[in-house]
Amino acid sequence: MNQGAGVFLDSLIAFGYQGDIYPVNPKLSEIRGLKSYPSLISLPRDPDYVVCCIPAALTPQLVKDCASRGVRAISIYTAGFSEAGDQGAELEKHIAGLARQAGIRLIGPNCMGLYCPKTRLSYSSLLSREAGGVGLLCQSGGISLALTIMGNFMGIRFSKVVSYGNAADLNEADFLEYLSQDNDTRVMGAYIEGVRDGHRFLGTLTRLTRLKPVAVLKGGRTAAGSKATASHTGSFAGDERIWRGLCRQTGAVEVHSSEEMIDFFEAWSRLKPPKGRRVGIIAWGGGPSVVTTDDCESAGLIVPTLSIKTRTDLKAFVPEPGSSINNPIDSPVLANPALLSKVIETMALCREVDLLIIRLPFAVARPPFDLEVTDTILEAVIQMSKAVDIPMTVVQPHGETPESSGQFFVVHRRCLEAGLPVFSTTRRAADAISRLIQAAYRLDRPWMADEETEACSSRRPGEAQ
Amino acid sequence: MNQGAGVFLDSLIAFGYQGDIYPVNPKLSEIRGLKSYPSLISLPRDPDYVVCCIPAALTPQLVKDCASRGVRAISIYTAGFSEAGDQGAELEKHIAGLARQAGIRLIGPNCMGLYCPKTRLSYSSLLSREAGGVGLLCQSGGISLALTIMGNFMGIRFSKVVSYGNAADLNEADFLEYLSQDNDTRVMGAYIEGVRDGHRFLGTLTRLTRLKPVAVLKGGRTAAGSKATASHTGSFAGDERIWRGLCRQTGAVEVHSSEEMIDFFEAWSRLKPPKGRRVGIIAWGGGPSVVTTDDCESAGLIVPTLSIKTRTDLKAFVPEPGSSINNPIDSPVLANPALLSKVIETMALCREVDLLIIRLPFAVARPPFDLEVTDTILEAVIQMSKAVDIPMTVVQPHGETPESSGQFFVVHRRCLEAGLPVFSTTRRAADAISRLIQAAYRLDRPWMADEETEACSSRRPGEAQ
Repeated sequence: MNQGAGVFLDSLIAFGYQGDIYPVNPKLSEIRGLKSYPSLISLPRDPDYVVCCIPAALTPQLVKDCASRGVRAISIYTAGFSEAGDQGAELEKHIAGLARQAGIRLIGPNCMGLYCPKTRLSYSSLLSREAGGVGLLCQSGGISLALTIMGNFMGIRFSKVVSYGNAADLNEADFLEYLSQDNDTRVMGAYIEGVRDGHRFLGTLTRLTRLKPVAVLKGGRTAAGSKATASHTGSFAGDERIWRGLCRQTGAVEVHSSEEMIDFFEAWSRLKPPKGRRVGIIAWGGGPSVVTTDDCESAGLIVPTLSIKTRTDLKAFVPEPGSSINNPIDSPVLANPALLSKVIETMALCREVDLLIIRLPFAVARPPFDLEVTDTILEAVIQMSKAVDIPMTVVQPHGETPESSGQFFVVHRRCLEAGLPVFSTTRRAADAISRLIQAAYRLDRPWMADEETEACSSRRPGEAQ
Repeated sequence: MNQGAGVFLDSLIAFGYQGDIYPVNPKLSEIRGLKSYPSLISLPRDPDYVVCCIPAALTPQLVKDCASRGVRAISIYTAGFSEAGDQGAELEKHIAGLARQAGIRLIGPNCMGLYCPKTRLSYSSLLSREAGGVGLLCQSGGISLALTIMGNFMGIRFSKVVSYGNAADLNEADFLEYLSQDNDTRVMGAYIEGVRDGHRFLGTLTRLTRLKPVAVLKGGRTAAGSKATASHTGSFAGDERIWRGLCRQTGAVEVHSSEEMIDFFEAWSRLKPPKGRRVGIIAWGGGPSVVTTDDCESAGLIVPTLSIKTRTDLKAFVPEPGSSINNPIDSPVLANPALLSKVIETMALCREVDLLIIRLPFAVARPPFDLEVTDTILEAVIQMSKAVDIPMTVVQPHGETPESSGQFFVVHRRCLEAGLPVFSTTRRAADAISRLIQAAYRLDRPWMADEETEACSSRRPGEAQ
């Protein structure tokens, strides 16, 4: 059995797939403890779904065999089609035609196929068995693996993920359409290299972004990147400005990296969309306050100066020397959990800001980390996030070494448990929140409104571990 | 003794400062095992340098006492000056006048002062005792602490760092001037909220960027951020577009976060500036190849298609099916260290690219990490980085959890030992390299040329631990 087939079979077994699994291999009689069959024709029952890992040249016969057994869909892992040149493109067209005639739908070729934890289908045995609300379509198998693995680590849980490669039959518009109608999917992400049917894509995306938020990462948005997509998925990608205009026109949220995609999922999974763009900032230190403010405004958020009344309220328990109380708030009293809680409460009640960003101090210095102060501060923040009715997020800076990341990891784990979003830089937080607001404003119905109580609670079922 | 004074005294002791240290406190006779004196006047010898942590109201008398003892410079940690309103601004002007009359230079007020490992002066006992080539000026104490601590963790070593707060006397232009003439400093960074003398700053910066690279992080580049700087360091910051124009005009490199500043230091500390902007990319997987290419082009780098001759050379040992050899290079053979080395060698010798970015695969899944493949690949990359004469950098993706960061940390440690720069995303790598090239082009003399052998070697003395 080839390596690809092994990965898919192992994943089905590891996930405890409940239906019948039939390995097909001309040379082996048993694979992973399962009876193996020499061909599709020899299977005891008609299969619904086939994962194809055989060489490209043999795929036309496979599609014909599938047709004779009434197969509904084939996921084609095999590469060597349109991404490999003219001959491959011909072959791809040929099998797409055969499938169409037989009423079989194709995923791929040149793709990883499906990850659907609810029905225990997966392209990797390493992914979470837990289902969540994030639906994802990826033209690249590598990106889909990276997004799902990294997302899982961050506590993000997926409804359905499809890596669809060259899109010979089912394409980006089909998968978007499906996810928009899927009750398990609450937010969507897409990594797209080349659009197969521009007109339909534009119409579909414009319609769907009114139903559910959609973030799009475009592969091949530059001239050289576009050339690279041709040899990857046989795509002809467009110009960066055209793509930006398309996102603006359709209401899709544009992201530029896997990290930004994960941040968007993080915000949407754990943060109730704020009612406006006005941010209250609580930060430790003057420089960090200034930089946080810049990052928020650069991302299109607003950091308003608090009213005289609110400042007077704050002055009652925030001594002026060494304190800034205009917004951002920076004061020595923030180290006192009780006073910090009062600051948060005052900001939440004043109705002058729509959300709060709490930038925790970077206390890490050398192991063992002195995290006591951070712990009590963080617990106060978590308690207040449940007590007030405006959304809150935490920013905890971290470095790129085990020593400097230690504090972030501790804070991250605690926030995950409490359902509070946490970001490693103020810029990532500001960008994610700005995108959350952008997508939320676009929705036809106040999508979150009827789920407000749930969204306000510490976490949503199934989405955070 | 107040907390501030304790931190400074502890740091001097921890660093093993070689000169005499005189604690001054009206109530204590011994501090940290050192004899303490009731006043400056009662000291047994004239001090050269005074760190002031007493309340703001008492500072005029302190400056007068310093004058009577022939003190040369005072670093004023004390806050409550121009950042606190009109009264504080008056007081600041007053002590600046007193100091000027007495020929005393001031650092601050409202600052952390100096970190100079060579002379064992430090504002924190947690910083590295090892000296390096990075000079830094920071108007914020918090940012200077974050940059030096995070930089240290990343293996960045500093020559002189000054946190200078309100800049009542010595300002950004003075410190830039100093660092540009300092033989220990090879690259400079500055976090600036407000410029004290715009005309002089412009002239100084324009001149200095021809001598040594300067990266600038502007605090208060947005309207709200600018308001925040007023209550932080009493600065009146400018408009973002004006600042961008100023960077372009002066040849300073603009960065937007502490992370980008550290990345710039990382690139400059461990990478020989490439001769041009043409990048060769070696990546694992089609999607990652495409995204890396986009990130490079977005950052102003060029990803050229390789010539027919070079592609023919590559085809000799890179089988075509499943491989892309136009640049980016993505092929199953990259998992073979010997063939990967041949790919690197071919790219380096072809003279069609000026540097190589090697994006390692994201192999991390669950602990214990299967890093064997990464290890052998990485060792091949490190060996080749010493064998070829074009600069190379590694990108190793990582997540935000201990599990998903594990592989990055291992790769980072190994690269640090080998003097090879490593970044966590292709965008951070591309941005840092683009800034490195921008700064290198600006230099009057080919600053690196006479140090080429050294720069090519695995690391520079004193800069990597």
